[in-house]
Amino acid sequence: MKLLYPTSLKLDVERLEGFGVELHAYNVHKPIPEALIDAEILVTWANTNLQDAAKRMHNLRWIQSLFAGPNDELAAGFPANVVMTAGTNLHNETVAEHALALLLSAARRLYEMRDYQNQGKWPGHLGGFLPDRPKGSFTSLKGANILIWGMGNIGRTLAPHLTALGANIQGVGLYEEIIDGIQVQTNAALPNLLPQTDALIMILPGSKATWQALNAERLAMLPRHAWVINVGRGVCVDEDALVHALKNGIIGGAALDVFYEEPLPKASPLWKAPNLIISPHAAGGRPRYSEALIAENLRRFLAGQPLKHDVREGGMYSTFALGTNSTLKASL
Amino acid sequence: MKLLYPTSLKLDVERLEGFGVELHAYNVHKPIPEALIDAEILVTWANTNLQDAAKRMHNLRWIQSLFAGPNDELAAGFPANVVMTAGTNLHNETVAEHALALLLSAARRLYEMRDYQNQGKWPGHLGGFLPDRPKGSFTSLKGANILIWGMGNIGRTLAPHLTALGANIQGVGLYEEIIDGIQVQTNAALPNLLPQTDALIMILPGSKATWQALNAERLAMLPRHAWVINVGRGVCVDEDALVHALKNGIIGGAALDVFYEEPLPKASPLWKAPNLIISPHAAGGRPRYSEALIAENLRRFLAGQPLKHDVREGGMYSTFALGTNSTLKASL
Repeated sequence: MKLLYPTSLKLDVERLEGFGVELHAYNVHKPIPEALIDAEILVTWANTNLQDAAKRMHNLRWIQSLFAGPNDELAAGFPANVVMTAGTNLHNETVAEHALALLLSAARRLYEMRDYQNQGKWPGHLGGFLPDRPKGSFTSLKGANILIWGMGNIGRTLAPHLTALGANIQGVGLYEEIIDGIQVQTNAALPNLLPQTDALIMILPGSKATWQALNAERLAMLPRHAWVINVGRGVCVDEDALVHALKNGIIGGAALDVFYEEPLPKASPLWKAPNLIISPHAAGGRPRYSEALIAENLRRFLAGQPLKHDVREGGMYSTFALGTNSTLKASL
Repeated sequence: MKLLYPTSLKLDVERLEGFGVELHAYNVHKPIPEALIDAEILVTWANTNLQDAAKRMHNLRWIQSLFAGPNDELAAGFPANVVMTAGTNLHNETVAEHALALLLSAARRLYEMRDYQNQGKWPGHLGGFLPDRPKGSFTSLKGANILIWGMGNIGRTLAPHLTALGANIQGVGLYEEIIDGIQVQTNAALPNLLPQTDALIMILPGSKATWQALNAERLAMLPRHAWVINVGRGVCVDEDALVHALKNGIIGGAALDVFYEEPLPKASPLWKAPNLIISPHAAGGRPRYSEALIAENLRRFLAGQPLKHDVREGGMYSTFALGTNSTLKASL
């Protein structure tokens, strides 16, 4: 039995040894070589050869993607009997850390300091003796009300860091529940939650259900000092409404790592919107613990047991998403 | 008995009631009014009237500064029998949070993203699919070796946040000891520690002993990807050596909140140094929990007990510094 692993990232292949499976490296940008075309298992990361693989790999039984949402794999035309598993949890730490960086940059106004620095000016108004957390401001995580919209695995990874810095966390998800001590409510609670929010962190998957979830109406519910951080999917924010909100002081600012179109088009009004931080989809894209997930699923595969994070079992997109079926489901 | 509290910051004065002491507000920029000149207790924050107060307040017995290092109070000419206590611990959270913001901005290269944004350019090389923490880089706190130089109360407040994000922390202080599970060594260990450091966080007080502590020799001991964060005092860094190190790729970058001269002079080469983040002394300057410290010391004062954080007892600067007498001592 052959397992093909991608050379598009560095894997510690030694950790996949001992299963009696032949391990072969492959290039994700070239057709799978004839000698490997009979492989049963394909691990994928940032592939551009999937449609070719779908046509030619007749022995294929399982694809392990390292993406949390293996869209390309799902769309490539593999037969329905090929099991597809997602890289669930491989991106929790990286995205959570980047979200924290964006949030702190917003609170401490590092982006504004940078602009002054580039002009050779000392922004005295941002330093020196200042009131601590004046009413109607977001200058520290201490005591800040932070709402995590999309309380999946990334949100769960992020929340304890925010709590440790003194923030009060609430969540919004598909179900009313308590997750790791955090009260999670549904979208229906947004009209109550948004007006008390100092920072809104969006970690929603892209889907019809989350399309432009943050629209003009909801932006207007936020306090005028509130910040929006989006590390989920760009389609979840109405970008025109956001630009309007930024230009008119309806919210305090926004830090976006994802956009409706990426790279952000030259003509986008987002480039010049005030108090907007643009990050080039840099939060994730760096899977961690891939070997442990592949090895665990390989053990299950060889034992004939159900694999973890099967994205097609129980219906398309049923489990891969941002977490368990008690939380949000992704379709991107 | 009269206690004068400053109007230069917002204090919840109600929390100082019930001691049988008259509480009076005063303006820190004007001479103390005649009606209040007989006060025994003066709370200070950002005062410019201290020399006048030192001459005229003949009943004064105790000054509670809200600065961690009450230099101005010490230099104003108050008689030696006036007890002076420092605002120890009031700045731990704010400085730690700001240091974390600078550190994450460095790791995630938010300053560089900002420069691209201002040019309307998408920095594709900073996002998308990237290797996770390639050797010889500082892109995440996960697994990073972080050295806290000046392991006082601020460092102790900061360290758990770094540890939670996966960093390995070591400390440098006046004594070899274990603080909150962190191995602290003395300056003598720097030649061993610096070459393994991904990020050096300086939280040193300014004094003769710490003058230009980070010099050319020590900068050269750091790996070429290492970052330096300084939230202590500007005099602890040889700025010329730092500019040289940045321009020549001897270190990866630096984020400075403090400078030899503040505001940073127009002519400083730091403005244009590559991979340098300039923050306008914004880490502290926002005391928290002042009322609790004043109330505790007021209780002790009325009971005739020694006050906490007395800066003159046992010799000048004996205890206020960055922590207890087992850690570093400040003279600024």
